Amino acid sequence: MKIARNSKLVLIGDSITDGERARPVGEGLFGATGKIYPSKVQGLLGAVYPEQKIRVVNMGISGNTVRDLKGRWQADVLDLHPDWLGILIGINDVWRQFDLPLQVETHVKLPEYRETLEELIKKTRPKLQGLVLMSPFFIELNKQDPMRRMMDEYGAVVKELAASYDALFVDLQAEFDRILQHTYSADLAWDRVHPSVVGETLIARAFLKALDFQF
Amino acid sequence: MKIARNSKLVLIGDSITDGERARPVGEGLFGATGKIYPSKVQGLLGAVYPEQKIRVVNMGISGNTVRDLKGRWQADVLDLHPDWLGILIGINDVWRQFDLPLQVETHVKLPEYRETLEELIKKTRPKLQGLVLMSPFFIELNKQDPMRRMMDEYGAVVKELAASYDALFVDLQAEFDRILQHTYSADLAWDRVHPSVVGETLIARAFLKALDFQF
Amino acid sequence: MKIARNSKLVLIGDSITDGERARPVGEGLFGATGKIYPSKVQGLLGAVYPEQKIRVVNMGISGNTVRDLKGRWQADVLDLHPDWLGILIGINDVWRQFDLPLQVETHVKLPEYRETLEELIKKTRPKLQGLVLMSPFFIELNKQDPMRRMMDEYGAVVKELAASYDALFVDLQAEFDRILQHTYSADLAWDRVHPSVVGETLIARAFLKALDFQF
Amino acid sequence: MKIARNSKLVLIGDSITDGERARPVGEGLFGATGKIYPSKVQGLLGAVYPEQKIRVVNMGISGNTVRDLKGRWQADVLDLHPDWLGILIGINDVWRQFDLPLQVETHVKLPEYRETLEELIKKTRPKLQGLVLMSPFFIELNKQDPMRRMMDEYGAVVKELAASYDALFVDLQAEFDRILQHTYSADLAWDRVHPSVVGETLIARAFLKALDFQF
Amino acid sequence: MKIARNSKLVLIGDSITDGERARPVGEGLFGATGKIYPSKVQGLLGAVYPEQKIRVVNMGISGNTVRDLKGRWQADVLDLHPDWLGILIGINDVWRQFDLPLQVETHVKLPEYRETLEELIKKTRPKLQGLVLMSPFFIELNKQDPMRRMMDEYGAVVKELAASYDALFVDLQAEFDRILQHTYSADLAWDRVHPSVVGETLIARAFLKALDFQF
Amino acid sequence: MKIARNSKLVLIGDSITDGERARPVGEGLFGATGKIYPSKVQGLLGAVYPEQKIRVVNMGISGNTVRDLKGRWQADVLDLHPDWLGILIGINDVWRQFDLPLQVETHVKLPEYRETLEELIKKTRPKLQGLVLMSPFFIELNKQDPMRRMMDEYGAVVKELAASYDALFVDLQAEFDRILQHTYSADLAWDRVHPSVVGETLIARAFLKALDFQF
Amino acid sequence: MKIARNSKLVLIGDSITDGERARPVGEGLFGATGKIYPSKVQGLLGAVYPEQKIRVVNMGISGNTVRDLKGRWQADVLDLHPDWLGILIGINDVWRQFDLPLQVETHVKLPEYRETLEELIKKTRPKLQGLVLMSPFFIELNKQDPMRRMMDEYGAVVKELAASYDALFVDLQAEFDRILQHTYSADLAWDRVHPSVVGETLIARAFLKALDFQF
Amino acid sequence: MKIARNSKLVLIGDSITDGERARPVGEGLFGATGKIYPSKVQGLLGAVYPEQKIRVVNMGISGNTVRDLKGRWQADVLDLHPDWLGILIGINDVWRQFDLPLQVETHVKLPEYRETLEELIKKTRPKLQGLVLMSPFFIELNKQDPMRRMMDEYGAVVKELAASYDALFVDLQAEFDRILQHTYSADLAWDRVHPSVVGETLIARAFLKALDFQF
Repeated sequence: MKIARNSKLVLIGDSITDGERARPVGEGLFGATGKIYPSKVQGLLGAVYPEQKIRVVNMGISGNTVRDLKGRWQADVLDLHPDWLGILIGINDVWRQFDLPLQVETHVKLPEYRETLEELIKKTRPKLQGLVLMSPFFIELNKQDPMRRMMDEYGAVVKELAASYDALFVDLQAEFDRILQHTYSADLAWDRVHPSVVGETLIARAFLKALDFQF
Repeated sequence: MKIARNSKLVLIGDSITDGERARPVGEGLFGATGKIYPSKVQGLLGAVYPEQKIRVVNMGISGNTVRDLKGRWQADVLDLHPDWLGILIGINDVWRQFDLPLQVETHVKLPEYRETLEELIKKTRPKLQGLVLMSPFFIELNKQDPMRRMMDEYGAVVKELAASYDALFVDLQAEFDRILQHTYSADLAWDRVHPSVVGETLIARAFLKALDFQF
Repeated sequence: MKIARNSKLVLIGDSITDGERARPVGEGLFGATGKIYPSKVQGLLGAVYPEQKIRVVNMGISGNTVRDLKGRWQADVLDLHPDWLGILIGINDVWRQFDLPLQVETHVKLPEYRETLEELIKKTRPKLQGLVLMSPFFIELNKQDPMRRMMDEYGAVVKELAASYDALFVDLQAEFDRILQHTYSADLAWDRVHPSVVGETLIARAFLKALDFQF
Repeated sequence: MKIARNSKLVLIGDSITDGERARPVGEGLFGATGKIYPSKVQGLLGAVYPEQKIRVVNMGISGNTVRDLKGRWQADVLDLHPDWLGILIGINDVWRQFDLPLQVETHVKLPEYRETLEELIKKTRPKLQGLVLMSPFFIELNKQDPMRRMMDEYGAVVKELAASYDALFVDLQAEFDRILQHTYSADLAWDRVHPSVVGETLIARAFLKALDFQF
Repeated sequence: MKIARNSKLVLIGDSITDGERARPVGEGLFGATGKIYPSKVQGLLGAVYPEQKIRVVNMGISGNTVRDLKGRWQADVLDLHPDWLGILIGINDVWRQFDLPLQVETHVKLPEYRETLEELIKKTRPKLQGLVLMSPFFIELNKQDPMRRMMDEYGAVVKELAASYDALFVDLQAEFDRILQHTYSADLAWDRVHPSVVGETLIARAFLKALDFQF
Repeated sequence: MKIARNSKLVLIGDSITDGERARPVGEGLFGATGKIYPSKVQGLLGAVYPEQKIRVVNMGISGNTVRDLKGRWQADVLDLHPDWLGILIGINDVWRQFDLPLQVETHVKLPEYRETLEELIKKTRPKLQGLVLMSPFFIELNKQDPMRRMMDEYGAVVKELAASYDALFVDLQAEFDRILQHTYSADLAWDRVHPSVVGETLIARAFLKALDFQF
Repeated sequence: MKIARNSKLVLIGDSITDGERARPVGEGLFGATGKIYPSKVQGLLGAVYPEQKIRVVNMGISGNTVRDLKGRWQADVLDLHPDWLGILIGINDVWRQFDLPLQVETHVKLPEYRETLEELIKKTRPKLQGLVLMSPFFIELNKQDPMRRMMDEYGAVVKELAASYDALFVDLQAEFDRILQHTYSADLAWDRVHPSVVGETLIARAFLKALDFQF
Repeated sequence: MKIARNSKLVLIGDSITDGERARPVGEGLFGATGKIYPSKVQGLLGAVYPEQKIRVVNMGISGNTVRDLKGRWQADVLDLHPDWLGILIGINDVWRQFDLPLQVETHVKLPEYRETLEELIKKTRPKLQGLVLMSPFFIELNKQDPMRRMMDEYGAVVKELAASYDALFVDLQAEFDRILQHTYSADLAWDRVHPSVVGETLIARAFLKALDFQF
């Protein structure tokens, strides 16, 4: 597995990461890593590689955009001194343009998204042993759907940045598209964003596979 | 307006009707008609036609399919002796086939839907001054979407039954499609089913327009 | 309709406006515009004129008098940069003189009411595309009733100010008087102030009719 | 004082009597007689005439009409074997005709009111040492108000029955009218029905004065 | 009645006064004067003398000793500009010596009690139209009981100060002793301190009788 | 210690025994024996004599009199097959005569108390290895106090029955009297009935000393 | 994978299975399969094999022993018509012998455990496509620990029954022992029974590996 | 008994001491000393030696290590001016090394433990009449268990410091070991740390025996 023994892995993002994690730091006993994908990462790492002793820290906050991540990057990422960092951001950057179309001040358009995410990566990558960038996703198979189309553009930015900054890229959209060959989106998430346990597991598995995790 | 003075109007259906109405009967003070479309019907009738003195009774129950309506039809419709009846049912009949695809016992397939709805209408229509049948809807513009496609089939049944049984037909799907020309579905409902205040108002307005309500 | 495409409409007032709106700003998803008249304005605008894309922002606070509005005018009106503004204030200014007759420090007498309201209008009108002034009301048909009599005096001030400052005037008292031809006040509001859904709808409708809204 | 030592006094009625009394019987420690007029009767009797040892039992239930009293008369009055009985009923009998005008099945019209109340009195009076009948009231000074006018008719029935059945008559409407010479109804009750502490005390005092209570 | 029309009456004290009054000032609608003796004073004044228009303000705080009163005297008494003031303090000053005998820092011994109370009276009496001093009390008939004995000493101080500073003195201990001729203390208060509705009424009545209130 | 290895000890009584024990049977994990004297008995037995393996079962119910015990004796005592039984009853039998003096139907007078308690003992004693009878108590040193005086009479009955039926007698009143030499009753219990942790411990210790428990 | 397409898999057991699943049947939306091992099985099956469409139904109830399973076997297993069944039972059968040593009626001794479990398997196996038996476990490495020792005996019974009845055997104790080579039991479960997310995942993984699940 | 009349005894520690005590200071009425060992000390002292009048103050805080004690020593110990002090600390210092093995910043290793505890004792001992040091404990009989082994090392430090600083040493580990001869750890504490009422009593008893308390 790519991640070294005794590493500290911080996962940052929005509600797909948060899952009612502990505050201010999502690490420790009693479900501190939350109820969704990060705790599944923690569970699988601990169950399969107990000897690796990886610290998993969940720093997601529901509703966040990359603009919000920038505001808390020092305290919530850099000050924690991660060895590995996982970033999953962009869904709200896109979604607000569709569910609050009139409140334009809440929209994070593509240039701001790209620029901010790159700025955060640039100043953090040198301090890390490894970086995992996950694409934002929309659980909708129709690529002509306007929100899916925009989400794909944001995902493409993530893919480019991963290539530029020596990061592992996890294509979560492709993962969900694979499942959607077999079932309808409502089976995974009524709102096509917050997935059920199958979707949470899908994310954790894709993340771990990028690290060459063996089940 | 088509509905006569001193009429009693019962609205039956699922969560689109229910809206936390009072139990066992959704009529009276303190928001007894619920928070959504039926109370908007009540508000508009009362504000514009106070002299008509229409009783509005909400008998919706969240999660219901037409199979559930059949089970409570005597107590919740016939025993209330409505003059007019509004029926909006079918969304869950379809949705369960998409969000619980494996739990087939929860699915109300098209033949059962048609047969049951017709049976209920047949035995009730003679006792009514008027009947309003509303199409079930899915807030999704893409007619190739599998759930939208099936919902359209259920809606077509409602339209046929309206024609056969001298009922007013309200094409709610067409109403939502009109709005979706101007905004994305997430602005109306994250889950494309339970609409925000704009969608609730849309339903009430379409219902009232069918009655020749003048604002 | 008088209100232009892409306008921002702020509604300010007391409990008749508030209705458990979101804090600090009553705009957004999940019922942020509250449960009463402003959300009905929002619902009707969105359902009928989706292409107009009007932002509706509810800034009511229960219990407020015009004295309270003055204290929060900068933050809650001017800083939001409305294109259109709706003001419905004065009920508590009058009511406290009748329900807390001994606590004279809570009373906003007519001169203070007129002067304060005019001051707020004067400094705001030039920044607006349109202003709607609604009369305070008391759901009591007897014009000799002391509280009704005083409410009429406050309403007359609103009407005068509307004429002086190029504002649309909405005579809510006249609207309620119309309904009261057909039913008793207790059917609308036990306390003759906080109306049921019929009264909330009445206010929204009168407001919208002043804007030449077509249902 | 008219009421004899060691008597048991039962007070029955609606929400004006109930006041969150203990169930099933409103007697005992920890506010069992409720928070309003019956507990004030209890407090004054106990403070001024401790040697009389009068048992006060509150059997009011909010929302009751005389039709409801009939349904529970055996269990809630006769089975308690009162020496004295106080009855204050009729407000909801009238109110429902004004706040739920369309739900006619909830209305207790004057003939039913008179007949039912007389039936209850007739079968109970012989078992009692004393009976106190209080008029229902509406805290509104305008005698032309429709609800006040009807309430006065119901009050007249109570007065007649008091004369016919050797009962003390307490004219609560007259008591409230006296207060209303000095203040507006909203100072006593926003809904003109459920009075503040001043009104509760007014009822208790009028009741006790009918018994020749000396403060 | 001794208290003049339009007077403001402030009642200050401990839990015998507080009774869940509103904060920060115990005046206004919805039970703001609390549930116990001050609201009974308010109720009786309003019911019998509505034309006098007396403002009743409850400033009691549970658990207070005279040392606590001193700490909040400016804000809670002087700044309210009372015309009349009622003080009922001393029970906790004594009680803590008996229920927390080891926590001597909570004890307010007799000299401190006398000195502090006198200081507060001295600086306030000139600003008042009238002052009512009530003795602290213990609902125990046995004058040899140690806590009763000490309470009597504190009561004697109140009586002396009333004589020195032209205040009306209300001997609440004597009032409770009168009741205790007819019933046992547990009927009034399990803890012999916080009285039931009979005791609360007793205090209100004694207070009002000192003002020549006529029922 | 008198109680044999592997014995089952049931403690029955009123609120002095109950202490929020588990229902229906007060035995097991997580504080099932309640918070007061029985759990202290359990704690001391387990800490000092772990090898004795005594089962402690709390069957107290707050508010009970001996009349209530009779009603549940079969289910709550006999069906549990205790080896040893502890009974502490009588406080409410006396107290109701003092705190609810008018509700005579709640009073358990001395003859009924004696007769009922004897009946229960008579039919149970033969099935027991040992029986402990505790006197009811009142935390008041003044033997002339009416409630103390009556409590002493009830305690005397318990003592007599203990002598007649080969039971251990625990004189709890004497225990409390000893403490009251050094502190005032309010330090132990504001209501002189429900003791603080010192009083609970006192009961447990007296109970255990009767069994020749060595600390 | 051994489990066939469109199979229904029921998982029955105690708190290790339950995890706040939905009642009465743990299947459906919104976390109906609970928060622990069954939902992890569901998540992994759905994420990796979406085309297999396996129904996962959680029927665990906290605190159950095999004696409890017997009592609800018809309703909770047979009536659901599972294709595959997973059973994890025995922990409470053992634990009660150690944490409630005196309450022997709660103990399910080894012979009863073996006999009851065999009876359930015997009557169910013929109706199943496959059966998975998991050993009960105790998260304690010391095999001389008395509770571990007894748990191993119960686990041996499960292993034997698996061999006799053509069931897959999952040795969960061996799984936990493997983890305990690398960390202390408190890292997995303070009580050595209810495991954290790592332990829940361990169970799900061992279960799935027995089915030849490929990650 | 070693502790003198009128002494103030402060007990400081972690969750074994805390037990939901009152904040900020755990002394006074209504269970202010918490529900566990300190209140049992208070109960026994008060029941047996009422004439000694010992003040018992609980200053435990759940989760504390000796590092936390240092941070609050001035406010929570020195400022309270105890005559006697009881310290029970170290369990969390050890436990975190076993239940949060990766979060090394939470670990208080042996040298820090020794140094910090000695520093606190050194500066406090001269101000005290007596000091009681209790060993931390782990309710596990197996001395080869890694956590038990480490706990024994921390306990040895406490024993040494007791000898060096003229403190009474209470060997709680030995006490629990004694009980564990007769029952399994799960009977005392599922987590082997937070004991049931038997364990709480064991601690109180051992503490008191060190003071030559006679039951």
